[in-house]
Amino acid sequence: MSRAVAGPEIERLIQLLARLPGLGPRSARRAALHLIKKREALMAPLTAALQTAMEQIVVCKTCGNIDTRDPCTVCIDPRRDPSIIVVVADVADLWALERAQAINARYHVLGGTLSPLDGVGPGDLAIDPLISRAHDDAVKEVVLALNATVDGQTTAHYITDLLQNADVKVTRLAHGVPVGGELDYLDEGTLSAALRQRTLF
Amino acid sequence: MSRAVAGPEIERLIQLLARLPGLGPRSARRAALHLIKKREALMAPLTAALQTAMEQIVVCKTCGNIDTRDPCTVCIDPRRDPSIIVVVADVADLWALERAQAINARYHVLGGTLSPLDGVGPGDLAIDPLISRAHDDAVKEVVLALNATVDGQTTAHYITDLLQNADVKVTRLAHGVPVGGELDYLDEGTLSAALRQRTLF
Repeated sequence: MSRAVAGPEIERLIQLLARLPGLGPRSARRAALHLIKKREALMAPLTAALQTAMEQIVVCKTCGNIDTRDPCTVCIDPRRDPSIIVVVADVADLWALERAQAINARYHVLGGTLSPLDGVGPGDLAIDPLISRAHDDAVKEVVLALNATVDGQTTAHYITDLLQNADVKVTRLAHGVPVGGELDYLDEGTLSAALRQRTLF
Repeated sequence: MSRAVAGPEIERLIQLLARLPGLGPRSARRAALHLIKKREALMAPLTAALQTAMEQIVVCKTCGNIDTRDPCTVCIDPRRDPSIIVVVADVADLWALERAQAINARYHVLGGTLSPLDGVGPGDLAIDPLISRAHDDAVKEVVLALNATVDGQTTAHYITDLLQNADVKVTRLAHGVPVGGELDYLDEGTLSAALRQRTLF
């Protein structure tokens, strides 16, 4: 607001909400008003949930997942196959793979990908702890579930090199046509990969 | 997440964020992760701002604006013209008019518009307090800044009737072509109104 129509506290709430991904200045104002109107039904529980998150959320020292316990829910889950470690760049990727329910394994969150341009080197990522984990006798396979971007693939190659002395199979996600995707809109690289890795019908 | 990959506290934070207007389930997950990553820079101040809002935000008993003081910043501002009351349906409309900086007046927030279909009657809105305020000798004009919808205009007519015995001029926003708008895309009602209320160039 250009002129003061309320105390600075509301303006501050709007400014902080506007820094959330997906909210701009306009939607942050709408969100703030919505919160103020739904004071008991939404603002109170959200405040409490953030307070709880502030106090309790920790990063798992084993895998880098975020949770309210360390080791995290995934690391202590006895129903998960301890022989497979799925390497992801970010917790968001871990969540995405879990939503797909495609693998029942443990994870390792790198905290990003190697990116010389952005000044991200091996020391900035949780690569050393991954190598240590991979040398555990129980671990038989490391799945590199990294983005199919230059940075993601550079990171995958770097880790593969470091794992050569570990007694593990190193695998990566298949390239191919996304489910529901139309060939006409796909790039040549994806189409070539999908053809090379074609499977029996 | 379909399987537990973290404690229920994170899931609860995501669910509450997803109830903000403008955020869906996917963007709520991104927002939650962003908050957790920017723990000190964003989550801590946002938690504090919400806590402050919970404790301090009140509705102004005079005009219905939300603020951390009652009477609110607008009602006590001595630079505002006390002879004009701008009637709006919602605090969001008050904010929008203030951003336009088009009038330096006091406001009155109705808290909605009359809507028989939704069961909103005159008793559900702050209409009686408006009529009382309009009878104050200092008030010379009531500007009905209500939506140009059926409900908004019904409300405007209802208030105009009630104000007939008050010594005030009742005005409403002009209809016309929005600034930057193209005639070809405007409805006939707007074009007719814009022609009828044409002004000297």
